[in-house]
Amino acid sequence: MNFAVIGGDMRQVNLSSYLAEDGHHVRVFALDRVDTGDKIKKSETIAAAMENADCVILPLPALAKENILNTPLSRGIHTLDEVMSAAREDQVICAGKIDGTVKAAFAKKGIKIIDYLDREEFAVANAVATAEGAIQILMEELPITIHGAKCLVIGFGRIGKALTARLAGLGANVSASARKCSDIAWIKAYGYKAEETQRLRGKLSGYDAVINTAPAYILSGELLGELKKDCLCLDLASKPGGVDFSEASKLGLKTIWALSLPGEVAPASSGRAMADTIYNIIKEQGCENEKR
Amino acid sequence: MNFAVIGGDMRQVNLSSYLAEDGHHVRVFALDRVDTGDKIKKSETIAAAMENADCVILPLPALAKENILNTPLSRGIHTLDEVMSAAREDQVICAGKIDGTVKAAFAKKGIKIIDYLDREEFAVANAVATAEGAIQILMEELPITIHGAKCLVIGFGRIGKALTARLAGLGANVSASARKCSDIAWIKAYGYKAEETQRLRGKLSGYDAVINTAPAYILSGELLGELKKDCLCLDLASKPGGVDFSEASKLGLKTIWALSLPGEVAPASSGRAMADTIYNIIKEQGCENEKR
Amino acid sequence: MNFAVIGGDMRQVNLSSYLAEDGHHVRVFALDRVDTGDKIKKSETIAAAMENADCVILPLPALAKENILNTPLSRGIHTLDEVMSAAREDQVICAGKIDGTVKAAFAKKGIKIIDYLDREEFAVANAVATAEGAIQILMEELPITIHGAKCLVIGFGRIGKALTARLAGLGANVSASARKCSDIAWIKAYGYKAEETQRLRGKLSGYDAVINTAPAYILSGELLGELKKDCLCLDLASKPGGVDFSEASKLGLKTIWALSLPGEVAPASSGRAMADTIYNIIKEQGCENEKR
Amino acid sequence: MNFAVIGGDMRQVNLSSYLAEDGHHVRVFALDRVDTGDKIKKSETIAAAMENADCVILPLPALAKENILNTPLSRGIHTLDEVMSAAREDQVICAGKIDGTVKAAFAKKGIKIIDYLDREEFAVANAVATAEGAIQILMEELPITIHGAKCLVIGFGRIGKALTARLAGLGANVSASARKCSDIAWIKAYGYKAEETQRLRGKLSGYDAVINTAPAYILSGELLGELKKDCLCLDLASKPGGVDFSEASKLGLKTIWALSLPGEVAPASSGRAMADTIYNIIKEQGCENEKR
Repeated sequence: MNFAVIGGDMRQVNLSSYLAEDGHHVRVFALDRVDTGDKIKKSETIAAAMENADCVILPLPALAKENILNTPLSRGIHTLDEVMSAAREDQVICAGKIDGTVKAAFAKKGIKIIDYLDREEFAVANAVATAEGAIQILMEELPITIHGAKCLVIGFGRIGKALTARLAGLGANVSASARKCSDIAWIKAYGYKAEETQRLRGKLSGYDAVINTAPAYILSGELLGELKKDCLCLDLASKPGGVDFSEASKLGLKTIWALSLPGEVAPASSGRAMADTIYNIIKEQGCENEKR
Repeated sequence: MNFAVIGGDMRQVNLSSYLAEDGHHVRVFALDRVDTGDKIKKSETIAAAMENADCVILPLPALAKENILNTPLSRGIHTLDEVMSAAREDQVICAGKIDGTVKAAFAKKGIKIIDYLDREEFAVANAVATAEGAIQILMEELPITIHGAKCLVIGFGRIGKALTARLAGLGANVSASARKCSDIAWIKAYGYKAEETQRLRGKLSGYDAVINTAPAYILSGELLGELKKDCLCLDLASKPGGVDFSEASKLGLKTIWALSLPGEVAPASSGRAMADTIYNIIKEQGCENEKR
Repeated sequence: MNFAVIGGDMRQVNLSSYLAEDGHHVRVFALDRVDTGDKIKKSETIAAAMENADCVILPLPALAKENILNTPLSRGIHTLDEVMSAAREDQVICAGKIDGTVKAAFAKKGIKIIDYLDREEFAVANAVATAEGAIQILMEELPITIHGAKCLVIGFGRIGKALTARLAGLGANVSASARKCSDIAWIKAYGYKAEETQRLRGKLSGYDAVINTAPAYILSGELLGELKKDCLCLDLASKPGGVDFSEASKLGLKTIWALSLPGEVAPASSGRAMADTIYNIIKEQGCENEKR
Repeated sequence: MNFAVIGGDMRQVNLSSYLAEDGHHVRVFALDRVDTGDKIKKSETIAAAMENADCVILPLPALAKENILNTPLSRGIHTLDEVMSAAREDQVICAGKIDGTVKAAFAKKGIKIIDYLDREEFAVANAVATAEGAIQILMEELPITIHGAKCLVIGFGRIGKALTARLAGLGANVSASARKCSDIAWIKAYGYKAEETQRLRGKLSGYDAVINTAPAYILSGELLGELKKDCLCLDLASKPGGVDFSEASKLGLKTIWALSLPGEVAPASSGRAMADTIYNIIKEQGCENEKR
C-alpha cells in the first residue's frame, strides 16, 4: 500500500519507519527537520505526497490552530486546506483529535476522515505510555522511592487504571478515587484503597504524591491546603487542567502539569501503536466497502 | 541520644533530619553547603561535633581517598585521623564501605567501628532504590515503553531480584541470568525467563535493554556484538564494571554506567533506611554490652 | 432500620448477620434449616417478617421457578405472590436476577423492586469470588501447578478481567481472547497474550486449561478436538453454556461446568457485598425520594 | 540412559513418564498398583530393575521406617538392603530425605547416594507447589475470598516467600513474620507488613488466616487465644509442627496440619521437577568423574 504521512512529531517519524519496515511505500511531508532514512521519500508538496496514497495520516493533534497543521518538525507553515484540496474519495484520511467542524468539512466533499484518537486500542496504548511518563516524573521529582510512597490517583479511567497498576507494581501504597460506584467497586477489586472524588476533603494529608487523571477541576485551593508541604502534585488532565495552579504556587507546593507524555517519553511505542491502529482502520474500511 | 553526623551527601542531610525528628540531639560537621534547619546544630570542628555523641555516623563511602573523608557538601577537606583522635571507647562509630585497614586501626585503639553497608536491611533498601534508579534511566533513555520491552537482567542478587520484580510490575518481558543452579531455580519460580550467565553467547539479539547487576566483567565485545543497534546497555556493577565500554563505543551502542543511584534518586528514602539501620546497630550493641 | 430477609442460601444467612452486626433489626423467613443466632428473629410467615420492614431482601436468584421462591434452606415451599400481597409502597424490595414480568407485576401495584445483580459493585464482587472459585477448581483438578500452566481465558468481561489478573498473580502463562478490538487492546495492556475469540481455530493445542467466561457457545467439537488430552475445560457461562459437553465427553476431555461459584466458595464475602450493595440502593432511593 | 525407579507415589509415576518421554529407558519396581503405560517396563525384582541402570531413583521420603522403602503404590514390602545389595559403584543412586546413617552405609560400600531434596532447584519447585496447596486449602476452608483476607505468614524461607507472593497476587492483605533483621528487610522490600516472629504477642487478633511455615513451635496456647474464633490456622511445618493443636482444639479454632502438599496437589509438576533435578545431578556427577 501507499501511505502519505503529513507533519507531526517523532511519533510520526517512527510511524513512517514502521510502515516502511512492514513493506509499504511511504511518502512524507513536513518532517524536513529530521532524517527519515533511505526507504522513505520526502515530497516537495502536500499534493505530491498524497498523489498516489491509499491512506493519508495527519498529526496528533492534527491542527496547531484553526486550519494550521501541527508540524513541529517542519520549517514551514502548512494548512489543512491544502490537504483538503488534494484529498480524494478513494483515500482514507486519518487524523488525531479533530473536531466536528473538520469532520463536517471533509464529509461535505465526500471524503472519509477518521480520528485515530477515538480508537480504543490507540487510547489504551496512549494510557500505558502516559502512565509510564507519569512514573518517570515521580521518580525524577520525588526524593523518596516509589516503593512505600503513599500515592493518590484521582480518576479511574484508562490512565487511572494503567497508572495504579504500575504504581502497585513498584510497591507504592496506592489509593484511587472515582465518582461512580462502579469504578469504586473496581478500585477495591484491584486491591487499592478507594475514595470518592467528590469527598476528598479531610483525606489528603498523608499523601506523598497526588496525580490527577480526571478531566475536571478537582484540586481547589482548599484541597491543596491539606497536602503535606513536600507532596508532589501531578496533573495529567488536558486544558484547562484539574489543579488550581496559582493557589498551589502560593502554598509553595511542587506542581507539574504534564501533557502529551506519550510523544515525549515513548515516541517509538506510540508510533508502533499508531501504525497498528491505522491498519485496523483500513481493514474495517475495507470490510465496509465490501458490504456496499 | 546524641548523634554526630560527619560529612556525606544529601542522604546524610536527610538522615540528620530523621534523627532530629525522632527526638534525638544531632550535631553535624562538613555539611556546610546545605541548610540543615533549626533543630540540627552545626559544629565548628570534628572534635566538637563528636564530644557528646553516643553514636558517630560517617559517610557512605566513608573515604574519598586514603584518610580523606568523603565530604562533597563541605568546602573543606577533612581526615579520618581527626575522627580517630576524637573517638572514645564508649561511642559507636558507624561508617559505610570501610576496608579491613580502617577497621584494624580503630580496633587497635579499642574503638568499635561498624560498616552499615554490611547490614542486610540497609543493603536491601539500597537495592530497591538502585532498581528504581535503573528504571528511571531506562524510561529516560529508551524511546519505547517499559511495557512490552524485552529486558535481560544479568545477576540475581539483591539488585537483580528488586529490579526484575519492578520490570515485571511495569509489564516488561523479563529474562534474568545467573550462574548458580539455585538462582536459576528462583528466576523460574518468579516466572521470568532464565538464562545461564556463562552461556549468554548466541542469545542476546532480541533484547531492548540489558542491565548488568553482577560484580563481574561479563559483556565482552563478542557478546556486545550480538545486541541490536538500539539496545540500551546499563551497567550497575561497581568498578571496574561489567561491560567492555570501549568496544561498546566502537559498535555505536548506547551504554550507561550508573553508580551510587540511591543517593541520587532517593536521598530521603536512603536517609530513612540509614537511620533505621543505625537504630538496629545501636540496639544490638546495647544487647552485646549487657551480655558482658 | 428494619430488614426482612426471605429465603436464599448461606449468602443470605451471612447477609442477615452483617445487617444485625451493623445495628439493624433483622427478621428472616425460610431460613429455618440453619441457626441464625440470637440477634436475628425468625418469623412464622412472610407477612410477619415483612410487616415492619423498611427493606425486604429476596434471594439470588429470587425464583426457583415461576412464582416459587428460591428457598433451599427451608423445608417449605413459598411463593412470590405471598411477598407481593404483603409488600407496601413505602418499602424497598431488593431481589436478585428478576425478569421484566416480575418487575412489571410489582410496578403495577406501585411497589419498587430493584435487582441487586444489576449493580456494578455487586457484579464486581461476584466476579472476584467467581474467579477465586475457578482457580480453586483448577487447583483441585489439575495435576500440575498453576505456576507455569498455560491457560486461556475466553472473554474479557468482569470475570475474565478478575480471573486473568489472579492467574498471572499465581505465575500462570496467561492468554485471553475477546471479540472486540478494544478488549484486545486491554488484554495486551495488562501483559497477557491476546487472541481473537472468533479466530481460535488452530491455536488451542498448547493449553493446560481453557476457561470460558463468555456467555456464548464457543467451544464447538472442532475446537475441542484441538485440545491436549489432559487439558481441563472449565465453563463459567450460565445456561446453555459455552462448551459442546457431549462432544467433549466423546473426546475424553475433562470438562467442568461451574455455576453459582460465589455462594459456594465465599458465602461470607458474598453476603458482605450484598449488604453493602443494599445500603447503596437504600441511600440512592432516599436521594430520589428527597428530590420528589 | 537407563533408569530404575523404585517405589514412591504419583510423583515417581510421573517422573518415570517424563524420563521415558525424554527418550530414556525406564524400568520400575514397586509401582504395581498403577498402570505406567507401554514405554515403561515393570521389573519383577529390585535387582532386575537395577541391573542395567545408570541411575537409580528412590522415593521421597526414601524410607517409610528403618530399612523399609516407602512404596505406597505397591502391594509388597521392600527393603533398602535389597537396593544396597544390587547397587554398583558405577551407578548414581538418588533418594529423597535420607539421613547420615543411610549415606554412611552406602559410602562404606563405595556407592554414591545423593539426596535430591538437598538440591535448591528441587526445593524451590517444592515450595511453589506447597504454596499453591496452602492456597487451595485456604480457598476450600474459608467462607471469605482470599481477596481482602488478612493473612499472616510466619517464616520467610522458601515457602514463606512463595506463599506471600501468591497471596498478594490474589489480593490478600499480607503480613509476614521472621526472626532475622535481614528477612524482615526483604518482607518490607516486597511490600508486605512485617512482624517479628518472637514478638507476635498482642498482634494476632485481626487475622482471617495464620499460616505457619517455620520449622519451630510458635503458636502456643497463649498466641492462639488471641485469634478470632473464625480464623483458620494452617500449619505447614513438618513434625512435630508449629501449633499447639490440643490447645487450638479446646479454643474451638479450625486448625489444619498439611504435610507433603506437592505430591498431593501437583504430582505431575513435582515429577517434572524431580526429573530436571536428577538430570542436573547426573550432569554434575559426570563433570566430577571427568575431573578425576
